[in-house]
Amino acid sequence: MCALLCTATASAMAQSNSINNIQLPEVLRNRDRKEIAIPNIPGYQTLKCDFHIHTIFSDGSVWPTVRVEEAWTEGLDAISITEHLEYSPKEKYVSTDKNASYEIAKPVADQCGILLIHGGEITRSMPPGHLNALFIDDANKMNQPDPMNAIREAKAQDAFILWNHPGWKAQQPDTCLWMPMHEEIFEGGMMHGIEVFNEKEWYPIALDWCLDKGLAPISNSDIHGVAEYFYDYSHALRPMTLVFAANRSESALKEALMNARTVALFNNQLAGKSTYLSQLFDASIEVVATGIAGKEGAMRYLLVNHSDIPYVLSGGVNVRVPAKATVAIFHKPGSVEVDVLNMWVGSQKNLKTTLQLK
Amino acid sequence: MCALLCTATASAMAQSNSINNIQLPEVLRNRDRKEIAIPNIPGYQTLKCDFHIHTIFSDGSVWPTVRVEEAWTEGLDAISITEHLEYSPKEKYVSTDKNASYEIAKPVADQCGILLIHGGEITRSMPPGHLNALFIDDANKMNQPDPMNAIREAKAQDAFILWNHPGWKAQQPDTCLWMPMHEEIFEGGMMHGIEVFNEKEWYPIALDWCLDKGLAPISNSDIHGVAEYFYDYSHALRPMTLVFAANRSESALKEALMNARTVALFNNQLAGKSTYLSQLFDASIEVVATGIAGKEGAMRYLLVNHSDIPYVLSGGVNVRVPAKATVAIFHKPGSVEVDVLNMWVGSQKNLKTTLQLK
Amino acid sequence: MCALLCTATASAMAQSNSINNIQLPEVLRNRDRKEIAIPNIPGYQTLKCDFHIHTIFSDGSVWPTVRVEEAWTEGLDAISITEHLEYSPKEKYVSTDKNASYEIAKPVADQCGILLIHGGEITRSMPPGHLNALFIDDANKMNQPDPMNAIREAKAQDAFILWNHPGWKAQQPDTCLWMPMHEEIFEGGMMHGIEVFNEKEWYPIALDWCLDKGLAPISNSDIHGVAEYFYDYSHALRPMTLVFAANRSESALKEALMNARTVALFNNQLAGKSTYLSQLFDASIEVVATGIAGKEGAMRYLLVNHSDIPYVLSGGVNVRVPAKATVAIFHKPGSVEVDVLNMWVGSQKNLKTTLQLK
Amino acid sequence: MCALLCTATASAMAQSNSINNIQLPEVLRNRDRKEIAIPNIPGYQTLKCDFHIHTIFSDGSVWPTVRVEEAWTEGLDAISITEHLEYSPKEKYVSTDKNASYEIAKPVADQCGILLIHGGEITRSMPPGHLNALFIDDANKMNQPDPMNAIREAKAQDAFILWNHPGWKAQQPDTCLWMPMHEEIFEGGMMHGIEVFNEKEWYPIALDWCLDKGLAPISNSDIHGVAEYFYDYSHALRPMTLVFAANRSESALKEALMNARTVALFNNQLAGKSTYLSQLFDASIEVVATGIAGKEGAMRYLLVNHSDIPYVLSGGVNVRVPAKATVAIFHKPGSVEVDVLNMWVGSQKNLKTTLQLK
Repeated sequence: MCALLCTATASAMAQSNSINNIQLPEVLRNRDRKEIAIPNIPGYQTLKCDFHIHTIFSDGSVWPTVRVEEAWTEGLDAISITEHLEYSPKEKYVSTDKNASYEIAKPVADQCGILLIHGGEITRSMPPGHLNALFIDDANKMNQPDPMNAIREAKAQDAFILWNHPGWKAQQPDTCLWMPMHEEIFEGGMMHGIEVFNEKEWYPIALDWCLDKGLAPISNSDIHGVAEYFYDYSHALRPMTLVFAANRSESALKEALMNARTVALFNNQLAGKSTYLSQLFDASIEVVATGIAGKEGAMRYLLVNHSDIPYVLSGGVNVRVPAKATVAIFHKPGSVEVDVLNMWVGSQKNLKTTLQLK
Repeated sequence: MCALLCTATASAMAQSNSINNIQLPEVLRNRDRKEIAIPNIPGYQTLKCDFHIHTIFSDGSVWPTVRVEEAWTEGLDAISITEHLEYSPKEKYVSTDKNASYEIAKPVADQCGILLIHGGEITRSMPPGHLNALFIDDANKMNQPDPMNAIREAKAQDAFILWNHPGWKAQQPDTCLWMPMHEEIFEGGMMHGIEVFNEKEWYPIALDWCLDKGLAPISNSDIHGVAEYFYDYSHALRPMTLVFAANRSESALKEALMNARTVALFNNQLAGKSTYLSQLFDASIEVVATGIAGKEGAMRYLLVNHSDIPYVLSGGVNVRVPAKATVAIFHKPGSVEVDVLNMWVGSQKNLKTTLQLK
Repeated sequence: MCALLCTATASAMAQSNSINNIQLPEVLRNRDRKEIAIPNIPGYQTLKCDFHIHTIFSDGSVWPTVRVEEAWTEGLDAISITEHLEYSPKEKYVSTDKNASYEIAKPVADQCGILLIHGGEITRSMPPGHLNALFIDDANKMNQPDPMNAIREAKAQDAFILWNHPGWKAQQPDTCLWMPMHEEIFEGGMMHGIEVFNEKEWYPIALDWCLDKGLAPISNSDIHGVAEYFYDYSHALRPMTLVFAANRSESALKEALMNARTVALFNNQLAGKSTYLSQLFDASIEVVATGIAGKEGAMRYLLVNHSDIPYVLSGGVNVRVPAKATVAIFHKPGSVEVDVLNMWVGSQKNLKTTLQLK
Repeated sequence: MCALLCTATASAMAQSNSINNIQLPEVLRNRDRKEIAIPNIPGYQTLKCDFHIHTIFSDGSVWPTVRVEEAWTEGLDAISITEHLEYSPKEKYVSTDKNASYEIAKPVADQCGILLIHGGEITRSMPPGHLNALFIDDANKMNQPDPMNAIREAKAQDAFILWNHPGWKAQQPDTCLWMPMHEEIFEGGMMHGIEVFNEKEWYPIALDWCLDKGLAPISNSDIHGVAEYFYDYSHALRPMTLVFAANRSESALKEALMNARTVALFNNQLAGKSTYLSQLFDASIEVVATGIAGKEGAMRYLLVNHSDIPYVLSGGVNVRVPAKATVAIFHKPGSVEVDVLNMWVGSQKNLKTTLQLK
């Protein structure tokens, strides 16, 4: 009887993983995708992106298709695999062609509908440190002795260029400085964004630089190993850059990045321009009036969080609204000023917004 | 720098349980509400309801306000506390007034915005067994020596009356029979629904009775202890009755029940009229064409499940679409017939539906 | 086929909850017990206890047997239900007999093998605030107009008496003071322990009082609602008092309490006498030498945590050893001094201990 | 006061990933190990092993060190990386040296204390199908045109040889047959074990073969991708072979395998020789007499499960004892016969054992 049951169960399991069309790439066959609930803002789609990722073709430990599998299952829209151009610690066993990752991952990304952006990481001592070039044609050509020439080659390929982990302590142990060479790169139109978050670190000062200079604030994983082994997803989404694009295409993504329409997301914190944070907040948190009266003129309101990010409010209302949850408050009707403690519009400054309690 | 982030987080944690307005009822102060994602159907709101619940005022083990707390946190819209009218095992310590539960829970339900339906359970040996009367005025008046008189009193109070757990083995150990007394109750217009699911049991034959006789299929928890101690929410939502109502009010809820616009939900299974199941399926599962071509004329499609219920498809497509997830399939464009293996339109019959792959 | 499968599964489920002997009390029939892994110390069993709990017989919201069910499933050895003696907000519906909770819960506790300690809470304004009397004969007799007389009655019943939540802000809003009346109670041999932790608050100064005066540091939940609704068990065990008793009996428990052999556990923090913390640490963390050599004379050691409490070490070794996990370190052989950051031997002082790396 | 606690916690968090000694290999630096609770049996240690694993050096998708990382974190004692000798789909980018995986993983395994067994997979059409050779010196030498010569080379290297997935439907679509060539291999002393479980499939008939012929029943993952992406660890441990070895060394492991002292573990099922299953059961389940009397002469007993495997009992006692949990039963004292429904001593036969209720 158990044999019967086991057979039935086994057959059910087989069924659950088998789609009747064998052309499905392996990554899609075995795993489902969890869509991330972060709303669009007026006029734009919110694309969830990670622009700093390694594989065995530099110092990472997985095959490029695993990165597409991760992007698919974790709900990302776009990724870039950015191998160290000058650093190939596995060269005894693995090809040093820095376009290989893109070449291998592209057909699977196409099948999955993930936007795979051709990229590479210029990897130098400080200054200038590490920079990623995205939307390139040929990674190998950027491997040049002089770092400025490497960056110029990226620009010649019309790349979006970002400065990685500016405060990484291996390179800036006690400080996080904007050096003359960074000024030169920026002045030359060869820096379009900066990582305000990398891996598990955040650099508040870099957010101020982005806002002052009109650069895109970026949050990347810089993942080398297996993503689920590295992050604890029970507490927060993977770090990612939210890009506000006209549509879900590579060209729209690039246009949005070049115009700095991004917000950095990490550890349930959001960092970026006040305009975008404010629109994200409004699209995430719905205030529902219930018409139910409390004491002393207060009315009951619901704060419904439609997103996967918890919000923490302080000021006129002090409450944490967990992800995909509803909290109830009693308050007098009117406009209420609050600070959103997990939204950063400057290195030391939270978003201020207004709840309309009607 | 980390200190800054940590401080913010710590301060947010401190505030997460404090809302600055002390009038908030205790149940709302400490717990947030997880909204259940089950879509509305055309013309109606889908209300999530449990119409069979006990407290210490019969043989349950919690105070009535705990039931409101559970409804709030677990995302229900409406509940009815239905004490055994004739059975008061705690009478040495607790009042036997069968309206007490309603009286105590009502103010808290109002503050929470939960629809609390006044109800009671007529508790007799088989036949007729147990019946719940909902939307009543006075539970105590239904405690009458003759079971038919009790039911007539429920009808006199204009109640919605449902037959509970018809196949409960304590009363129908080897069978699940529709007896002459049930016929008499039904013919007298005193039965409007039947539990096809109760607690952890389902009665497929009762679904056929409902569909044949135009009665509302109902799924209730019949919970006596603490809900989270009894069910394992990691696998499935709590059992509930989905009611398709014109709006979220007691009167609309009653109208919908009286017109049998319900579906029973239990263990990720849905049982009811084909029309409603079909509409629920269409509102839950979105088919997205990607324009990506596979082999032999097949195209890639996404099945996006917007609901908290996993769906299992068999036939032209064989795939399980987990809750709030997306699966990808390759298939030739066209109409594809599938059986939905977790949707029941008869005791042995699954919903058949068509996926439009464009 | 699915019908077959469903039947089989249903029967398996039925089986899994049915024990072939119907005398089993309901609480044991439906739920299993998770044993807490906290080791014994030399010469004593470590009993896991909660001495401050309410039910509907004062201002709690569950029936007394639910408290036994919680103790059983959550792995506790002993509990005391301690109703407010002078406060009965549910008296319109519920008996005001303050021995009722004990009377109702005792037979079920006996069946479960939980030590149920007869207790009650003397509930007064500050001073003296609230005090629990444990191991009593009659709770009702302690309800006396004068608080000192109530405490004297507890002493006459040979109770273990503890001062509850000394820094509760409703009673000591800006401070946490030892007042003359507390001195009088202490001098009169009528205070044997103090809550250094209550519900979700901890009072570091009370730990200093305990250590100075030879009183037992106590950690209690003071739970009113459903325990699993109130605490998040994914991060830490429920608050509890660890009592080091000669055996698992009521008399041994009382002897241990009277001799202040306790440690307070809350939020993965342990507070108490240095001797007991040191013994707990040694019984929890095993250092395993692997014989594997690293660079510069360092050797690889494993720190194996056999307990359900994570430990955080700082000093010669800086590492967090998660619950029931093993971490590896490289270090030169020898004795290494560490602070255990989650073990408190004073309001501002961590346990210092030595790891023997051989 | 809270500030104090919060600060301590924050500082602990900061330190949780930093170990003050930089020689620690990366895999140990970032991840802790969860020890698997499966008890030893009299005279032997129970080693948890996986002998069938792939990496990018054949058709897998991770770097060899990831396999050591998985073994470390998931609590395994020994693994073997077994690349397809004749199949190198990544050869455009990756070396075809079949000893490379072992070479790369060995130093990290040594640092972690994981026993890494040098192995390889002879990969042929049926018959003979696929066979793993373990404890070899040179994988490349086994790549020979004739399959029997490849197997003979394995034997010449003194390998433990196992037949992989005998009922794999790609090779035996409708059946699971022991063919003449398998007889020849067996008769030649060149088959020492058989996979009764591979990946997500089990082959009950293979268990009968093992027991009839004195071969070791083996359970392997045959993992190609990331382990945590492939299995759902919330329901069951990863598939593994339990080996009963005199000690935790490569030589003792080999001796135990050659003498067929193994049990296959998969999906909470255990398959093997009755002797070993019986000893495992006795070491896992403790029966505790409580001295508490029930009705009609029954006494209360606790069944305490010390292992991470749930056990399902049927017969004199019908109960599921979840992993690391305790259930209570009432029963008359005496010896009670039970079937252990998740222990298999034959393709259709469960272990029978006796509970001593004293």
